[in-house]
Amino acid sequence: MIILLTGMPGSGKGEIARAFKRAGVPVVSMGDTVREEADKRGIPKTPEGLKALSIELRKEMGEDAIARLAIPKVRKLLEKRSVVVVEGIRSPAEVEAFRRAFPREKVLIVAVHSPPHQRFERLRRRKRSDDPRTWEEFVDRDKKELGFGIGEVIALADYMIVNDGHLEDYRLRIRELISKLLPE
Amino acid sequence: MIILLTGMPGSGKGEIARAFKRAGVPVVSMGDTVREEADKRGIPKTPEGLKALSIELRKEMGEDAIARLAIPKVRKLLEKRSVVVVEGIRSPAEVEAFRRAFPREKVLIVAVHSPPHQRFERLRRRKRSDDPRTWEEFVDRDKKELGFGIGEVIALADYMIVNDGHLEDYRLRIRELISKLLPE
Repeated sequence: MIILLTGMPGSGKGEIARAFKRAGVPVVSMGDTVREEADKRGIPKTPEGLKALSIELRKEMGEDAIARLAIPKVRKLLEKRSVVVVEGIRSPAEVEAFRRAFPREKVLIVAVHSPPHQRFERLRRRKRSDDPRTWEEFVDRDKKELGFGIGEVIALADYMIVNDGHLEDYRLRIRELISKLLPE
Repeated sequence: MIILLTGMPGSGKGEIARAFKRAGVPVVSMGDTVREEADKRGIPKTPEGLKALSIELRKEMGEDAIARLAIPKVRKLLEKRSVVVVEGIRSPAEVEAFRRAFPREKVLIVAVHSPPHQRFERLRRRKRSDDPRTWEEFVDRDKKELGFGIGEVIALADYMIVNDGHLEDYRLRIRELISKLLPE
């Protein structure tokens, strides 16, 4: 089984990915996949470098470029493991790439939703180099993600987790999801 | 306050709309708005007639055509009421139309999410004249909605309700939402 994890920036995907890792499930990160490709090509891993590389990769390999780079990693993990999580799915093209590459594997979409104002506050506190500092930067980043088609992936999710209150409630929902998805 | 209610076909928007009505909040339906326009123009209210009218309205008035037709109804209700629900929002253009028309009013998006297989089963049981009977028809209808940009509206919702289990759980979540949104 492949679990494709999606959600808008700052929605709380990392918390779910960490919970799966703690449960012993390997996680392939789409973001790390781009960063590894940057290393291979000697491109600086700055926000600008990674953004340019993402655009370049899509030009070279198509809309599902990052999925294509992640697929061999997932395939290798599935040789020894029954469940793999892929974190950071952004477009229907990426979902399709995984479905095509693993026709006999169950492929599920898990989305996490958090209201825009809460995501903005979370990103402002996080302060990764590419995180928005103003509401305008936040709206622009959202638009970029929506431009990839992430809204369509979220709308078609098999499981939706809502992260809109206390962290403890969110963690409880994640634990419930994991026990639903993972065989005992 | 204007509450814009959105969700994929078969997700359970009707249940939320009915709960708001029971709580005394007027509900303007985007679907009914199209049906009323069909009556005015003498167009038969068959799935084909309504579909053709929707396309025609967008050509005449723009992407936010149905919102424009609904806005006077909302404006009239807001003269006497503090909260109005609009059911069946499908695109960012419609959201923008309401925000533009009511700059001093709080405009919130409430989305309901239900997994595709559950929505399909619900629509198959519902059997409205335009409801899908096969999985292929269901996927086509989803694609049509996603083409309007409904995924973007869902991804940016201020409140997300998940309808993925028992009806009683869903009704409880709706009651919790309503008590959060409505002043006592």
